[in-house]
Amino acid sequence: MDYQQIVYEVSEGIATITLNRPGKLNAWTMRMEGEYRHAMAEAEKDPDVRVIIVTGAGRGFCAGADMDMLSGLSKGETLGRGGEAEDLPKATPGARPDVRDDFRMLYTYPPAIQKPIIGAVNGAAAGLGFVHTLYCDVRFASERARFGTVFARRGLIAEHGISWMLPRLVGVQNALDLLYSGRMIDAQEALAMGLVSKVVPHDDLIPTVRSYATDLATLSSPRSIAIMKRQVYDALFQDLATANTIANDEMVKSFETHDFKEGVASFVERRPPKFTGK
Amino acid sequence: MDYQQIVYEVSEGIATITLNRPGKLNAWTMRMEGEYRHAMAEAEKDPDVRVIIVTGAGRGFCAGADMDMLSGLSKGETLGRGGEAEDLPKATPGARPDVRDDFRMLYTYPPAIQKPIIGAVNGAAAGLGFVHTLYCDVRFASERARFGTVFARRGLIAEHGISWMLPRLVGVQNALDLLYSGRMIDAQEALAMGLVSKVVPHDDLIPTVRSYATDLATLSSPRSIAIMKRQVYDALFQDLATANTIANDEMVKSFETHDFKEGVASFVERRPPKFTGK
Amino acid sequence: MDYQQIVYEVSEGIATITLNRPGKLNAWTMRMEGEYRHAMAEAEKDPDVRVIIVTGAGRGFCAGADMDMLSGLSKGETLGRGGEAEDLPKATPGARPDVRDDFRMLYTYPPAIQKPIIGAVNGAAAGLGFVHTLYCDVRFASERARFGTVFARRGLIAEHGISWMLPRLVGVQNALDLLYSGRMIDAQEALAMGLVSKVVPHDDLIPTVRSYATDLATLSSPRSIAIMKRQVYDALFQDLATANTIANDEMVKSFETHDFKEGVASFVERRPPKFTGK
Repeated sequence: MDYQQIVYEVSEGIATITLNRPGKLNAWTMRMEGEYRHAMAEAEKDPDVRVIIVTGAGRGFCAGADMDMLSGLSKGETLGRGGEAEDLPKATPGARPDVRDDFRMLYTYPPAIQKPIIGAVNGAAAGLGFVHTLYCDVRFASERARFGTVFARRGLIAEHGISWMLPRLVGVQNALDLLYSGRMIDAQEALAMGLVSKVVPHDDLIPTVRSYATDLATLSSPRSIAIMKRQVYDALFQDLATANTIANDEMVKSFETHDFKEGVASFVERRPPKFTGK
Repeated sequence: MDYQQIVYEVSEGIATITLNRPGKLNAWTMRMEGEYRHAMAEAEKDPDVRVIIVTGAGRGFCAGADMDMLSGLSKGETLGRGGEAEDLPKATPGARPDVRDDFRMLYTYPPAIQKPIIGAVNGAAAGLGFVHTLYCDVRFASERARFGTVFARRGLIAEHGISWMLPRLVGVQNALDLLYSGRMIDAQEALAMGLVSKVVPHDDLIPTVRSYATDLATLSSPRSIAIMKRQVYDALFQDLATANTIANDEMVKSFETHDFKEGVASFVERRPPKFTGK
Repeated sequence: MDYQQIVYEVSEGIATITLNRPGKLNAWTMRMEGEYRHAMAEAEKDPDVRVIIVTGAGRGFCAGADMDMLSGLSKGETLGRGGEAEDLPKATPGARPDVRDDFRMLYTYPPAIQKPIIGAVNGAAAGLGFVHTLYCDVRFASERARFGTVFARRGLIAEHGISWMLPRLVGVQNALDLLYSGRMIDAQEALAMGLVSKVVPHDDLIPTVRSYATDLATLSSPRSIAIMKRQVYDALFQDLATANTIANDEMVKSFETHDFKEGVASFVERRPPKFTGK
């Protein structure tokens, strides 16, 4: 596929989407939105892909909305003027019938993709770039990573669902602090807040994330992961009785599957599993 | 009572339930389910019991579902075949009329028991054993404790409400990490995630938990604790206005009680309180 | 205004409300309730106030309900007997038509005030004093700060919405621990639980909070903050689709504002912003 602002690679069961406008700290454009969405759909439907990694090229992860776009908006231009990825086929990742409306909006679809999405945050994630990290399932950070909502310092508001996601990830107090102040925090403060799962030396970031992703791709049943991802995100909107009734149905179904038989057999036989997702 | 797979003891206002199949790392059976449920009902109705401790005999806390049960299931046997505790009277702990459906399911009833339940996690808590720790109110861990969901490595799904409970205890990111990977984490990582409240040297675990439990049993009104436990778990499903309206009703009622008068008097008189639960 | 039990000061865009019964560790009275509410309404409507700080005079932050009030209640007197601030005009901070019932109750209105409220916890915050810290948006603590719910040690229950707020700030496990035990924790344990955002040496508390507040008052758009505060608190009761639909509407509206144009212009021109809230 002819991507201009991202790089998409697949190897060893892992798709990597790299935001790739390093001269602009990978600032977000409507073109990048289209390509990112398209690549997510590719990774979703490729049976060889079990895990998705999102990272940035160069010094930054994503500096937020491109300043040309913001400047245009501040002068009365409308959003989405030019730059769209109209040459790419329309892609709608995560668009299954059983997906909640919550995960069918402009940037909110990654939780509907039934594969783990790991954010490998290599540098600054600001504004819209910060928002994108929140829709990853797990975030690993380089010691050089920095995070900030920035919106309040541009006269903007809590965009694209961050008012809902951020308090659920780091609590109300940290969410208000980060939104009110718009300040940039470093990787260690992000770790202390629970915003990222792990901080590693910069050069170890991609190896660490790939090692973790490889474990998911080889030691975990992709069928298990797909169902558990839906369970966890849906349970945010359910009561316990509903979530547990679904769990009980899924548990009984799982007893019939190849992956359960293989999971038990490989454990008993003390050998690595060969999961098929069936 | 003739328990075979647990030990149940009461002393100094504290009931201790010890999972007791140490040769199998206290792996869970249908028999153990029946005994655990029965012992919980005993502790609930015993007026001398103010706090409940759950722990494991030997090296492990609970290794999860017994492998014989899992192997049987993977060969097409049905759940619950044999091993039930049919000699024990049927017990339904937490079955008051005002209890939500959320807390009336197979393993979800401990939050409906109006006494504090402290998990003393002495070793590995895996799979179903991990799930049981989540339905304790507070978890203390030995330095030798380890925690893992394991389900994805057996081709299983997020069982028995863990998809709902775990994100509310450790956040969405940690919940997805633990569910996707099925990896075992040590006590320190569990502490950093907020999964356990405290980590202590192995030999200090039971003394520390008993000391904490003794404080609850002697310094806190059991009436206060019973109402607050219901308030906190119910509030997970309520809006603030509803929770606060209930609180205002309960506050006014508490002004009429012996325990309030005793709480104020003992404070003013600088002496230990003698709470009766009335 | 003729306040007797608080001090209210405004300088440099920051209103400071100081609980001021230092001989009683600022124990709460009905008079203090009226004055606190009145001062909050003043700060809300004063266009020069962009941030509100709440702190205590002397050694304590607030020791909870005044013992004379509690003793009277324990002897059958009714709540609110005497001591009301009837000389003050009735004040209803946060009472806009679009405010949810959740934030219209006796002590639950601070989240409806569309300015940041920073708790500067200088000493013990106990019982009702602890509750008040939870309705601040962000809490900074002195090394001398201590926190405790205390209710269970007086035969009381989880009052004034704490059953709802506390689990959302520190998780279910820490909330139950603090409510069951009523124990006092120090500032470092409060930090580890996520109850406070930062702990500083005692003499640095007010300078640190004022420095943070000054950043909010000068670098963030007050319009952005007002909208984001409502977004975050309302999103606790919404699904993601609803919260994001509101965000998309607010985002488009923000593109038309002075503060957005000023936010972009000041960034491009590398100069401090001059936000007006328009």
